[in-house]
Amino acid sequence: MDNRPIGVFDSGLGGLTAVRQLEAVLPHERIVYFGDTGRVPYGTRGEDVIRRYAAQDCLFLEQQDAKIIVAACGTVSSVANADLRARAVPTIDVVEPTAKAAVAATHNNRIGIIGTAATVRSGSYAGVITALRPETQVFGQACSMLVPLVENGWIGEDDEIARLAVARYLQPLKEQQIDTLILGCTHFPLLTAHIRAFLGDEVTLISAGQEAARACAKLLAGTDALCDPAQDGGTVFYVSDLSQNFAEVSRSFLGREATDIRLVDIHSL
Amino acid sequence: MDNRPIGVFDSGLGGLTAVRQLEAVLPHERIVYFGDTGRVPYGTRGEDVIRRYAAQDCLFLEQQDAKIIVAACGTVSSVANADLRARAVPTIDVVEPTAKAAVAATHNNRIGIIGTAATVRSGSYAGVITALRPETQVFGQACSMLVPLVENGWIGEDDEIARLAVARYLQPLKEQQIDTLILGCTHFPLLTAHIRAFLGDEVTLISAGQEAARACAKLLAGTDALCDPAQDGGTVFYVSDLSQNFAEVSRSFLGREATDIRLVDIHSL
Repeated sequence: MDNRPIGVFDSGLGGLTAVRQLEAVLPHERIVYFGDTGRVPYGTRGEDVIRRYAAQDCLFLEQQDAKIIVAACGTVSSVANADLRARAVPTIDVVEPTAKAAVAATHNNRIGIIGTAATVRSGSYAGVITALRPETQVFGQACSMLVPLVENGWIGEDDEIARLAVARYLQPLKEQQIDTLILGCTHFPLLTAHIRAFLGDEVTLISAGQEAARACAKLLAGTDALCDPAQDGGTVFYVSDLSQNFAEVSRSFLGREATDIRLVDIHSL
Repeated sequence: MDNRPIGVFDSGLGGLTAVRQLEAVLPHERIVYFGDTGRVPYGTRGEDVIRRYAAQDCLFLEQQDAKIIVAACGTVSSVANADLRARAVPTIDVVEPTAKAAVAATHNNRIGIIGTAATVRSGSYAGVITALRPETQVFGQACSMLVPLVENGWIGEDDEIARLAVARYLQPLKEQQIDTLILGCTHFPLLTAHIRAFLGDEVTLISAGQEAARACAKLLAGTDALCDPAQDGGTVFYVSDLSQNFAEVSRSFLGREATDIRLVDIHSL
């Protein structure tokens, strides 16, 4: 038994979609979330910068006594995976569990992956998928505009700009006749209605945040590191910039309004 | 006479539109540009973070022996104006010259300003404009999505998403019957065709980058700080992240491909 908290980080607030899944799967666990809102986005940056930011994010969560760190960021999971594995604390990235779930879901061995530019450029998902099943074809599509679209709240089901942006990005994947699509960025579940409307119900959507939460629960259970089941769960939120609309954004990502939000000077770590 | 370079900075690459104007107005001057590509965007962040970043940007340019610093960033000019004025080196911000140009241009005293969320929230332009001419009404509109739209290159004249996004943001200003619009962010001149198409030719567009370049030339001339007119001009480019598409983006913003791009570790300043 281990009553220390689970640490979760993301480049910004998208990782709250993973926290939502963790809260559902592991309701008694305490969670410490760090969102690097002062330096978001990561996905358009170079590898060195992403690795430096990821190291500071992990260090902060280790200082909060996290027993495990979930990198809810597709970009960090793709670009800084080796760094994550080298930490003293066990880490869960989104790539491996999500790639496994996609391989389990596909029937025609044609999997699409949408993510940030850095995620797609890294080839991370394709690497894990083809190692698991070499005959699978993986089609990557960088979707840089979908992150600001979600952060800006232009996601309503009747939002014409969201509809057009999703269609522009997914058209090449549709043409490749994928039957499974990895939402390789924690922002993308909020565009599920648009993605479904464009691709149709026959394409299986795999959410990186959901798979990471399940992998975290499995690892904790397997290493006898779950908390006391009588413990009251609860999540504490840290950010590197107190953005004006945290409360509003947290409603979309987390499904409830986050309270008790604290500011961290991540630059000085 | 002062042969030291002119320093110019922006949160990212948008400030290259100001460099383009400076190169046209002052072809013999040497220019040092710093684009904080490792931390772009600034405009959605809080005031403390923006001020800290701006101080590091100025310090870097002072270390490059800049004789004057042009803050080509509407967000920094709006939020950290007092900090800029307190530097040892003279500084030019985009707000004051742009506001003056807008007051000179308006006939009906109804001026619109589009910028980042931080710029509009600060009320910076309205403050200068109403000090100059109290009867003027200023209508601000935060346009957070236009920055990633431009950085992503979705700006073509037949781009339906750009057309819809510009229309969504400008509709309230059109209803207010503005006759002058300040493009309060260095990214926005690249959307001029869409803005003109929506507002019509009768609305005067004022570009912050252009006005800042003119103000810089005027200040240098007035303080006998222009360079030797026999000097060969030239611009050196520094960034905090070597983004993959600097060459491509520089063609849009600068009108030519930037070469000799150097990396700065801005975090450690």
